[in-house]
Amino acid sequence: MSNKPSIPKGTRDFLPEVSLRREFIFNTIRDVFKKYAYAPIETPSMEKLSVLTGKYGEEGDRLIFKILNSGDFLNKATELEDSRKLSFQIAEKALRYDLTVPFARFVVMHQNEISLPFKRYQIQPVWRADRPQKGRYREFTQCDADVVGSDSLIYEAEYICIYDEALSNLGIKDFTILVNNRKILAGFADVIGQADKFTDMCVAIDKLDKIGEEGVRKELGERGIPGDAADKLFKLISFSGSNQEKLDFLEKELVSSEEGSLGVQEMREVLDTYSYFDSYNGTVEFNLLLARGLTYYTGTIYEVKANGVKVGSIGGGGRYANLTGVFGRPGLSGVGISFGADRIYLVMEELGLFEDMPSISAKALIINFGEESRGASLQLLNEMRKAQIAVEYYPEKAKMKKQFSYADKKGIAYTIMIGSEELESGKYQIKNMSSGDQESLSAEEIVKLLTD
Amino acid sequence: MSNKPSIPKGTRDFLPEVSLRREFIFNTIRDVFKKYAYAPIETPSMEKLSVLTGKYGEEGDRLIFKILNSGDFLNKATELEDSRKLSFQIAEKALRYDLTVPFARFVVMHQNEISLPFKRYQIQPVWRADRPQKGRYREFTQCDADVVGSDSLIYEAEYICIYDEALSNLGIKDFTILVNNRKILAGFADVIGQADKFTDMCVAIDKLDKIGEEGVRKELGERGIPGDAADKLFKLISFSGSNQEKLDFLEKELVSSEEGSLGVQEMREVLDTYSYFDSYNGTVEFNLLLARGLTYYTGTIYEVKANGVKVGSIGGGGRYANLTGVFGRPGLSGVGISFGADRIYLVMEELGLFEDMPSISAKALIINFGEESRGASLQLLNEMRKAQIAVEYYPEKAKMKKQFSYADKKGIAYTIMIGSEELESGKYQIKNMSSGDQESLSAEEIVKLLTD
Repeated sequence: MSNKPSIPKGTRDFLPEVSLRREFIFNTIRDVFKKYAYAPIETPSMEKLSVLTGKYGEEGDRLIFKILNSGDFLNKATELEDSRKLSFQIAEKALRYDLTVPFARFVVMHQNEISLPFKRYQIQPVWRADRPQKGRYREFTQCDADVVGSDSLIYEAEYICIYDEALSNLGIKDFTILVNNRKILAGFADVIGQADKFTDMCVAIDKLDKIGEEGVRKELGERGIPGDAADKLFKLISFSGSNQEKLDFLEKELVSSEEGSLGVQEMREVLDTYSYFDSYNGTVEFNLLLARGLTYYTGTIYEVKANGVKVGSIGGGGRYANLTGVFGRPGLSGVGISFGADRIYLVMEELGLFEDMPSISAKALIINFGEESRGASLQLLNEMRKAQIAVEYYPEKAKMKKQFSYADKKGIAYTIMIGSEELESGKYQIKNMSSGDQESLSAEEIVKLLTD
Repeated sequence: MSNKPSIPKGTRDFLPEVSLRREFIFNTIRDVFKKYAYAPIETPSMEKLSVLTGKYGEEGDRLIFKILNSGDFLNKATELEDSRKLSFQIAEKALRYDLTVPFARFVVMHQNEISLPFKRYQIQPVWRADRPQKGRYREFTQCDADVVGSDSLIYEAEYICIYDEALSNLGIKDFTILVNNRKILAGFADVIGQADKFTDMCVAIDKLDKIGEEGVRKELGERGIPGDAADKLFKLISFSGSNQEKLDFLEKELVSSEEGSLGVQEMREVLDTYSYFDSYNGTVEFNLLLARGLTYYTGTIYEVKANGVKVGSIGGGGRYANLTGVFGRPGLSGVGISFGADRIYLVMEELGLFEDMPSISAKALIINFGEESRGASLQLLNEMRKAQIAVEYYPEKAKMKKQFSYADKKGIAYTIMIGSEELESGKYQIKNMSSGDQESLSAEEIVKLLTD
């Protein structure tokens, strides 16, 4: 093959610099998950197709990558004229589409091995056959924390802390954690007399950012919600004030809706619990416009935005009352959040937060002067590595210019030269590559300098 | 769906305890890779099928998991009666089968963005449609380090160090790093007059462990190598002695073979370079029986075995003279090694090395006594988390027995009780769950105790 090779549309190679930054993002989020007592699990990349089908809506089903059965897959196939029907006959497995459905499947399968409430985090890739565009890929890594088996609102408050602490630890200074409660939205539907149009209402509100108030009003109309109900709705969701003022306002406005009142009460408890916790850089905003579209959420919902950077939401999540029902284990409530690592990367890049990241390379390069100083060079290499210093010995006696350019390109901080003079004196030349300063040090002194 | 859900054959869920151990293995290996100045890269899980096909032999090709094209994949399909032919018409992508071919593809695609020699590590899952059996899975994680663009034997010596240091850091005390050189094997083929049967000879020798000397002799015969040549071969490969003695023996025996002599010279340099480095727990054995079967290696080859534990090799690798030629970039030599994380896990489990692993859970659980002590509990929770202590507050006022059993099952070291008496005195009861000892401490003292 002499054609230049390429990779599938919507997928990415990550060069060392980017991989290290991604590693930093994952590690930072992981450390915070652990501090809040979440434990890791891993699930297979492939799930049985039957586990995934029907869980993500019709559109979602189309975006699932199916894996062709091995061997003579045609031997049971009859639907040779219909791609969709045939696909179910020749593909029994599919790639994970998100981490939530596999988590629900995991909880049901392992219910006798785990104790409830079960708190897990999971940082693994997912795959979607979506049309690729800026910031949207066919393979991307999700970072999720969820707890299943408790209705306690403590967790809801703690997820605000987790977002706040993780994003602050990443160096992001200005972001907003939006919270709302789907029961409050149900209350809106109740008091505007459109209880049966709850989902339509949520889907329309969810688009406010994209299509504006006029657009939402139009969509509400198309979905059968009359103009006077829309007026009432906008009067409610447009209320502005502090989080406390919103609670007081809604307590009165939703008094006639049982579900709405419960939502207000829940939100009050979440915010009260959160008030006991130190906050870092994030602002918590009780946002009446937050709806999270068509999703299966039933209580508190979250969305996180970096302010002043146009990349959309960098996190989201919420409470789902019946997480595992679809796998035959009803009655388990779950709540969880997700971090959007790719968008967080874009935010950090735009804010210049990667500029102070540690070098991707060795701290020092021992220049190769050939046979004469080979022994001394290998000894020094050994001493430095024993002291846990990341160091390289240039692999062959190349031109000085080439060796220095290697150090330069890899961002190596120091070069060490052991020529014949240095061999005699036992003092090696060490050069700081950014300042250009050079000094003569013994092996021991070099180890000390680079360990401090 | 009321059937109990399941996962595809040959794949695995990992519960928290196992996930944490795996994380420990990956982190330990990663840290050593970094110390030797390897930088991470990531490649997509899916490669174009054309990138993978023909790289792993006929058997390998059959074991590649293909991904069904999205949408109306039948519209270009004509081979509706032949599964194999049809698969190439309806699947353009496939799951990564190893990390070496994607690495070669990566080097060619990004040759203008990287500088040579390019040292990378990669820790990612791979997929093979193999028949599952103990220790063999259809999805498993490979941990590879490779360098491309240099012929220097320094790297060969360093890979011995990397194996030695990483496995020692994992706590494994008794293991052997076997090394040999494919050029020496070519020398054997030369001097027994079977130069054209080199590959057959390697394939047969590679089975010695499994089928014994008689079996190998039989296979050599079947592959057209006559009995007297086999006698000569066994005389050579049966030589026993120290690594140095083997070198001296082979230097004489292979003097008539140019390639064999070069192999001996290379091995001598690798072992000499390695002699400058401190060794940890591993024994380095120049092993004339090591062949690495059908693989594309051309120089030094490695295989690592844990002694006294029957799990097969826990690592392997070697030099391949023309890594990227198949992607249209000839002349780049590569050398690399791989760690078998699943088998390393089995070794560590058998040796009881996971027994001292840190708890998977929070360090402390604050018992939930309900409304009265909610404020004090949340304040303590906040103080402890500010001090970076992993701590949980039980999510609801449940029976004591249930709360203590939760702490017990999760291996939480301390429980903290804040009842009405404690509220009044400001001194909380803290109980060491393993000793049963209990004492009264202020919030500040608790933080201090659990930070030390």
